[in-house]
Amino acid sequence: MNNADLQGPSSRNQQVMQYAIRLGDDALVLGHRLSEWSSKAPFLEEDLALSNVALDYIGRARMFYGYASELAADGRTEDDFAYTRNEREFQNLLIHELPKGDFAFTMVRQLIVDIFNTHFLHQLEQSSDQTLSGVAAKAIKETRYHLRRSREWITRLGGGTEESQQRTQKALNSLWGYTPELFELDELEQQLCNNNIGVNNTLLSAIWHQQIADILTEAGLTVPENSWTVKGGRSGYHTENLGHLLTELQFVHRSMPGLEW
Amino acid sequence: MNNADLQGPSSRNQQVMQYAIRLGDDALVLGHRLSEWSSKAPFLEEDLALSNVALDYIGRARMFYGYASELAADGRTEDDFAYTRNEREFQNLLIHELPKGDFAFTMVRQLIVDIFNTHFLHQLEQSSDQTLSGVAAKAIKETRYHLRRSREWITRLGGGTEESQQRTQKALNSLWGYTPELFELDELEQQLCNNNIGVNNTLLSAIWHQQIADILTEAGLTVPENSWTVKGGRSGYHTENLGHLLTELQFVHRSMPGLEW
Repeated sequence: MNNADLQGPSSRNQQVMQYAIRLGDDALVLGHRLSEWSSKAPFLEEDLALSNVALDYIGRARMFYGYASELAADGRTEDDFAYTRNEREFQNLLIHELPKGDFAFTMVRQLIVDIFNTHFLHQLEQSSDQTLSGVAAKAIKETRYHLRRSREWITRLGGGTEESQQRTQKALNSLWGYTPELFELDELEQQLCNNNIGVNNTLLSAIWHQQIADILTEAGLTVPENSWTVKGGRSGYHTENLGHLLTELQFVHRSMPGLEW
Repeated sequence: MNNADLQGPSSRNQQVMQYAIRLGDDALVLGHRLSEWSSKAPFLEEDLALSNVALDYIGRARMFYGYASELAADGRTEDDFAYTRNEREFQNLLIHELPKGDFAFTMVRQLIVDIFNTHFLHQLEQSSDQTLSGVAAKAIKETRYHLRRSREWITRLGGGTEESQQRTQKALNSLWGYTPELFELDELEQQLCNNNIGVNNTLLSAIWHQQIADILTEAGLTVPENSWTVKGGRSGYHTENLGHLLTELQFVHRSMPGLEW
């Protein structure tokens, strides 16, 4: 998105559309990663639970893309957003696209994202944009439930065997460098924030750090140093993982667009 | 299961346990096949819908295995039934294990199974075994909803483009030989049926054939000839597909039994 896109009579709508697409991308990409556990989780109860969380995220993607579709001047549908954009056009935060890893990795990512989302969605609920506010109100209820689960798991994994403790700490260390990106604002987000539409992510950093530090410490885990960081998702610069994910996600749709066969 | 297993003081419990395991196997294997569509369906709405059907089936597997676990004399849990038995020990009807194929194949299988299950579960609800009856009462509500969907899809695919019509007919022809197995009774099932515990599947054949013929004809599809048939699932004789499915389904659990790491 360049400055020219932000001008003209429909520029506000275009900004909100872009914002909704980004939030839809976050939800779709993470939902796909979670769905990779379907029928592959370590036990049946967890299989159902993780699959349900995946469905919450894919449902959330539909709500954001659906709103983007209403705002789109060119008639693009939710499926166009999900299935016909390429890697450079996806603007999800990078943490969502990392491969699912082992169960500890998946659960540490959920903890990071769940804490972030409880605060992000609480702010988005205050948006002057009624649709974004409504989506946030629905999503935050799911997220509170997700956080209860991921928190319990981290406590259990951190306090489990030596191997579970080590695997969880390793996951935490390898994910930590992707967390600073959660608390950044680019120009688009800054403008939406100034207009009481978007959330000021920079203000969520302190409470997020406090909360996750409490949970990790309680679980006997060490809060990693902020020694490295990877960013770029909101500008369309991704890890090599997103391309593979989109290949799988989009293959069926691209091979029969609009179910025309 | 040989005759020796059917004797002794706890033989009735052992029979019911075996029956519950079989019904759990049907549900788990089909649930896995449906979950393979997660994040890969042709569009977002269908992705959610198919994933929800998958979750219904995995939930159903848990109910049947959970009951089998209560009846098991050796302390086996629902996860033991799902994750630690091998191919020869699974007793699902073969139609459930066939690869998901294209969308038409998946939907034709659902139509076949959904019609069957509405009648099977209706009968199982009358079982003198209160637990089986209760599971059936819950599952039949889901199944009626599933059937509404699969019926609509077959009508749409049958009446769609020439290619969709051809693909649907091809799926129907390739699935038809697996349907006679639905209406068989082996010795175990015959005994449970005599005791008003199990369902007499042979009595469901006529109404199933009538109902599916009506739907197929309305959709412009041809009811296949009964020229070939494949059986063996209830005796543990499977197509080569089940082994691959179990490898994927059981891999995580087998590599960390009881989440001991």
